[in-house]
Amino acid sequence: MKYCSECATPISVRIPEGDSLPRYVCNHCGTIHYRNPRVVVGCVPQWQDRILLCRRAIEPRHGYWTVPAGFLENDETTREGAARETREEACAEVTIGSALSMTHVVHVNQIHLMYRAQMNQADFAAGEESLEVALFRRTEIPWDELAFPSIRFCLESYFADLDRDREDFHIQDVRRPMHPTPPAGGDS
Amino acid sequence: MKYCSECATPISVRIPEGDSLPRYVCNHCGTIHYRNPRVVVGCVPQWQDRILLCRRAIEPRHGYWTVPAGFLENDETTREGAARETREEACAEVTIGSALSMTHVVHVNQIHLMYRAQMNQADFAAGEESLEVALFRRTEIPWDELAFPSIRFCLESYFADLDRDREDFHIQDVRRPMHPTPPAGGDS
Repeated sequence: MKYCSECATPISVRIPEGDSLPRYVCNHCGTIHYRNPRVVVGCVPQWQDRILLCRRAIEPRHGYWTVPAGFLENDETTREGAARETREEACAEVTIGSALSMTHVVHVNQIHLMYRAQMNQADFAAGEESLEVALFRRTEIPWDELAFPSIRFCLESYFADLDRDREDFHIQDVRRPMHPTPPAGGDS
Repeated sequence: MKYCSECATPISVRIPEGDSLPRYVCNHCGTIHYRNPRVVVGCVPQWQDRILLCRRAIEPRHGYWTVPAGFLENDETTREGAARETREEACAEVTIGSALSMTHVVHVNQIHLMYRAQMNQADFAAGEESLEVALFRRTEIPWDELAFPSIRFCLESYFADLDRDREDFHIQDVRRPMHPTPPAGGDS
């Protein structure tokens, strides 16, 4: 952010009065431009003993598998957003169920919120952002080709709960280390 | 949003290629300025048979009661944010527990996410955004003076689960009707 979106004056970064964190502040019109984490919503669409996955046609992680998911829009609930993303990416209509998992991807300021879902029919197809879409039995999941840690976490949570006949809500924190651990056996 | 925050050119509102919704777009540098819902995080701090509430010293709903809560910041998880808000508004240290409730406040593009929490000590005081902070037994809760529907929902969910000896995650959608229902018996 370089300019105030209200008055086009070059922006400053400083701690406003009564605040404790640096913000993008306009010294001309006084507007404080807050930056906040964004929410990604998705679901695990179930059809009989299989679940629906999409292979990504976009970066990041082009070619890797994911559940249908994307950024929550204004004017919708997270359940509506998860159903919309499933419609867009997998051309499938779902009934959203219970909340499944939430992953805080702290280093990119994202929250990934996933639901259980039932497919209304066995119809699906690749949307614009998918290379292909397919139903997988549990033993067929491409665990080594999943796009993100939040996808692995939601699927692991999903199947663990199936085994226990529960529907819990699971929370995970993911932080990319700021300073990578030096390789074992290195100097000092 | 009137000007591009990257290049200060007046902004346009249009549907970008490959998108389906109108966005704030800069026709000069091509930046798309997405607007997304913001997350409010908070908790119900428990001390023995009482919970901690704050009376708001700020608008909206100045003078009304709330649990400690506020906007999630970048670089923190929702659990960290809930603990930080409790420190700021109630000068209390808590250990965050299970996820309690999520309210979609659709007409203001907010998600209110609340946790159960245990107070680490019986210490608390009014922070800058609180007029007063106090512990309440269940029978003492000021139900008619709560600040927001999400606060009533999280407290109702909290006590309902206590009665059932459960810790479920509860979801609520709140929409302010665009066109109020005409009064019964009025002209049509």
